[in-house]
Amino acid sequence: MDRIGQQLAFLAEIDRLKTVLRGTPIHDGTRRENSAEHSWHVCLYALTLAEHAEVPVNVPRVIKMLLLHDIVEIDAGDQPIHSDHDPDALARAERVAADRLFGLLPPDQADEYRALWDEFEACASADAVFAKSVDRIQPVAANLASDGGTWRDYAVSYEQLEIRVGVSARRGAAKIWARLEPRIRDWFRV
Amino acid sequence: MDRIGQQLAFLAEIDRLKTVLRGTPIHDGTRRENSAEHSWHVCLYALTLAEHAEVPVNVPRVIKMLLLHDIVEIDAGDQPIHSDHDPDALARAERVAADRLFGLLPPDQADEYRALWDEFEACASADAVFAKSVDRIQPVAANLASDGGTWRDYAVSYEQLEIRVGVSARRGAAKIWARLEPRIRDWFRV
Repeated sequence: MDRIGQQLAFLAEIDRLKTVLRGTPIHDGTRRENSAEHSWHVCLYALTLAEHAEVPVNVPRVIKMLLLHDIVEIDAGDQPIHSDHDPDALARAERVAADRLFGLLPPDQADEYRALWDEFEACASADAVFAKSVDRIQPVAANLASDGGTWRDYAVSYEQLEIRVGVSARRGAAKIWARLEPRIRDWFRV
Repeated sequence: MDRIGQQLAFLAEIDRLKTVLRGTPIHDGTRRENSAEHSWHVCLYALTLAEHAEVPVNVPRVIKMLLLHDIVEIDAGDQPIHSDHDPDALARAERVAADRLFGLLPPDQADEYRALWDEFEACASADAVFAKSVDRIQPVAANLASDGGTWRDYAVSYEQLEIRVGVSARRGAAKIWARLEPRIRDWFRV
């Protein structure tokens, strides 16, 4: 297959991200969010809130990472952060998924997208740290908007939220997390 | 409301784009696509296919436009390109929607996002022309993948597709359109 053919095959395959359901509901609580619409939403979080990042970030790189960050879920599925799962097994499955999915592209693009995804997964730069922070913050806003959302489904405690979400959200976006914190404490009654 | 408060209010409000249904199905044909997941998908079309643009484009600007391009549909709704509608009335409703929705942001960001949206709507630059082209091409790929999709629903002819979609798709991305054309002709049997 030639270059455009490979690119169109990749773009057709990733349509399936629209069928991967996350733990988090959309704000009106009527249904669960899928990973494609979540990816759009976190890109707008990054674009709109980048000025509050702990250190200056390259916004276009952050957005590229966030456009790509969940594509592996087409093969590996979404594991809600508050669900019981084996993180090492998940990481292995996601790497196999990245090999297959980015491997549909011409080699130079496959390498570029894979490097951005690896950087995001490893939180290996200021851009990745901020991208990960907004990826943590967006579902918290959805849970607050829908009276608990995932927290209710998985019986999450305030302490668990702090460890699993707060630490990573604060690392790249402490000012934004601080703004959500009173509403979170209020919901958890702590 | 202060700056972060305004930004978070905007980011909460735009969650509703996930409930705006388009004419086009997702590739597996099981349901209609919403405008939020469509926006994510066209961003990846732009990122992956930018090298084939008719003239060089600023990819981060194109992606910003595409992240923002459908937000007005929260108030104005999505009018499928092949449906009967009054384009002038729609354009007016979309401008009112843009005033309200981008107006939720701090004034400098409201102005920036609005200017990008106006540029996209008016096809007022090479970036906007390419953005509009991929916005035309992505649903064509979805219709081809789902045995006609919108074309079947709206009884679209090959000539209508040429006028409503092909002209604008070719303007910014002729090489990509040329690649889809044999499959389109095959589906329409022309």
